[in-house]
Amino acid sequence: MSPAEVPVADRPAAVAAAVDQRRLGELVSRLATFGALPGGGLDRQALTEPDLAARRFLTDLARSYGAEAARDPAGNLFFRWAGTTDADPVVTGSHVDSQPSGGTLDGAYGVCAAIEVLAALSATGIHARRPIEAVIWTNEEGSRFSPGTAGSTAFVRPAVLDEFRAACDLDGVTFADALAALDARLPDVPSRELARPIHAFVEAHIEQGPLMEDRGVPVGVVRSVQGTRWFEFRVAGLGGHAGTTPLSRKRDALMAAVQVADGVYRILRASDDTMRLTIGRLIVHPGSINVVPAEVVFTVDLRHPDLAVLDDIERRLRALAVPTAGCEVGVERIMIMPPTAFDPGVVGAVQAAVDALGVPHMGIDSGAFHDALRLVEHCPTGMVFVPSIGGHSHSPLERTDLADMTTGARVLAHAVLALADQEGDAR
Amino acid sequence: MSPAEVPVADRPAAVAAAVDQRRLGELVSRLATFGALPGGGLDRQALTEPDLAARRFLTDLARSYGAEAARDPAGNLFFRWAGTTDADPVVTGSHVDSQPSGGTLDGAYGVCAAIEVLAALSATGIHARRPIEAVIWTNEEGSRFSPGTAGSTAFVRPAVLDEFRAACDLDGVTFADALAALDARLPDVPSRELARPIHAFVEAHIEQGPLMEDRGVPVGVVRSVQGTRWFEFRVAGLGGHAGTTPLSRKRDALMAAVQVADGVYRILRASDDTMRLTIGRLIVHPGSINVVPAEVVFTVDLRHPDLAVLDDIERRLRALAVPTAGCEVGVERIMIMPPTAFDPGVVGAVQAAVDALGVPHMGIDSGAFHDALRLVEHCPTGMVFVPSIGGHSHSPLERTDLADMTTGARVLAHAVLALADQEGDAR
Repeated sequence: MSPAEVPVADRPAAVAAAVDQRRLGELVSRLATFGALPGGGLDRQALTEPDLAARRFLTDLARSYGAEAARDPAGNLFFRWAGTTDADPVVTGSHVDSQPSGGTLDGAYGVCAAIEVLAALSATGIHARRPIEAVIWTNEEGSRFSPGTAGSTAFVRPAVLDEFRAACDLDGVTFADALAALDARLPDVPSRELARPIHAFVEAHIEQGPLMEDRGVPVGVVRSVQGTRWFEFRVAGLGGHAGTTPLSRKRDALMAAVQVADGVYRILRASDDTMRLTIGRLIVHPGSINVVPAEVVFTVDLRHPDLAVLDDIERRLRALAVPTAGCEVGVERIMIMPPTAFDPGVVGAVQAAVDALGVPHMGIDSGAFHDALRLVEHCPTGMVFVPSIGGHSHSPLERTDLADMTTGARVLAHAVLALADQEGDAR
Repeated sequence: MSPAEVPVADRPAAVAAAVDQRRLGELVSRLATFGALPGGGLDRQALTEPDLAARRFLTDLARSYGAEAARDPAGNLFFRWAGTTDADPVVTGSHVDSQPSGGTLDGAYGVCAAIEVLAALSATGIHARRPIEAVIWTNEEGSRFSPGTAGSTAFVRPAVLDEFRAACDLDGVTFADALAALDARLPDVPSRELARPIHAFVEAHIEQGPLMEDRGVPVGVVRSVQGTRWFEFRVAGLGGHAGTTPLSRKRDALMAAVQVADGVYRILRASDDTMRLTIGRLIVHPGSINVVPAEVVFTVDLRHPDLAVLDDIERRLRALAVPTAGCEVGVERIMIMPPTAFDPGVVGAVQAAVDALGVPHMGIDSGAFHDALRLVEHCPTGMVFVPSIGGHSHSPLERTDLADMTTGARVLAHAVLALADQEGDAR
């Protein structure tokens, strides 16, 4: 049967079937060599040499499958497999930049899965109604240039790019300089505009948590990204000589902070296992062995999918900011990100894919941020998760079974093809 | 009555009476100008320019009272008021180096009081049987060159000086270089040997704690320096993504550390007010808002005058080092300094002074370390304390009433004179 003879309704299954485990495994392994650390894991921060080399490699690979490469002013790269019309494309992909001591799969898996979809399209010769694009977003991690998800944010809201371009890394290199280095590396890749219309965006990603491994399912149908709020507690006491200050005179900021932190942990222990509450940073001033702590500052990272629960926990956290053990305790909310539901149509396409392919799966809410969270503002968006062994992420311990990665890529291919044959917006 | 006519038994009271509040106050104020910080307090770290200038000034002042100046290879300066014999001297003094943001009295008060004793001797013309020396020990604070009490330690144990001379400050200047700068500043001051015999050492010092102010007494008869033990707890958990790791999977090192720290504070709360137990340093790894803490290291500073109590508390602290909240907890003792009683003869001379002068006083154990703690290994030693307003020390807030400083100097003069007329070791 020639590609043109495959009925539209069968195209998703045909492309999913053409996803090749060996080819995907080789790509994941090859991509992991760019920025590989001697002890395992990666250092492939945004627009550093390993990131530039990886992008050059992936551009050439995508072209070899018959895709057309483009870049945009935020450094995002698009590899376009033509549609039978010029309707708005379906886009899939993630990022290839890593944390300074990151794993080989965070972001990279989603890019490899997207390029494997191109490979499967190429192998089958199928062209859907809409173009299908694999994307590499720029600087998702934010470890070299702040903020993270810079590329996807600038794609969605081009006005922010000027501000992002001024961001400096620790060596004084600006994001603008780093983007110029990317341009120099890809002189043969034409530029396209930011914020152009997209019919749907689907991102495949590792879970970065342990829930799917615990349930033994290879695919997660991602419903939402849970809401996040960050708080900073400041506990002010009075410094003093550790050898001369009796308890009755102590206003020890760490003694008070330990009481407040215990209150935070009580809230966590009294909640169900969906609650995320972490004190990740705690700094003691002056921090000398023999000096009574004068001030302690600590952060709380709160996440939950339910807005009402977030509001309730915030109220209970704020109630901990009362004078404690002779110290003043203040709290400030320093970041808020509401729970974000993915588009029912895209979630439905992923659900239809697991149903059609008979893949064991679970509904899941993302605990982490992703480029998809930005695309929600721009177009119908969804995600596909594969399990993280041991729940490890942002660490050289990041691992996923190749069989699960392949299943995830098949589900992605199926959903993308179904979305790419949807009607509307023909030019 | 000419000085020679003052009966030996009356000399302590005569010299104490000659201590002059105005002169002492002027000296304390003048010394506070060396290294003064714009916002109050001092930066006069060991052998920096302000310390060298202060030492030059004090050398010239002591000579103006008729004392003979000498230095030793550790940079300690001695100003000797002759005795009627060459028997071993009675020495009194402290240090003039400060913390980087220190107060005007820590150490400096003891040196001013010692020089005021020389001034009172000069004013009365009294010479005791033994020489009386005011001393400025070098680098007591240890903030520029580690370790602290370097000068007094090297005086007592000359073999350690070579090692101390190699210590570097943050600019790469060695202690040896800094000592050479002192020599260049005092070319007219002859050198004397380390570890020469001393009949008795008495150090006047601010309390650096709140006990005397609370009791409303101007003078503390210091019985001992309490024992100190430093511990380091290490709590090892497992890092993870704050957004994806449920409580049931968390091995959060800070959650465990807060439980262990709460145990430390329970021990403190269950003890009497003599107990000193402080967690002064607590460091969280990796210390990011959105990462579950993988490791926490914190210190405990334990002090008490009673060896049996120290042993008991150490046993209870070690009992906290058990697996907690899924984390491993280890503890190591990183420093031990036994409780050190001062010499009954010298403590008795201070007690006799407060009794003879009718000064309200209290027995007290020093919570902080002092040069006197080193001299204990070398000769009969004791201390005189004056109150610290608010208990503040190592801070620009350091204050003591001039009236109390004067009373302390009178007690010091009385005790030193009594010791200086004791028999023995005539040459």
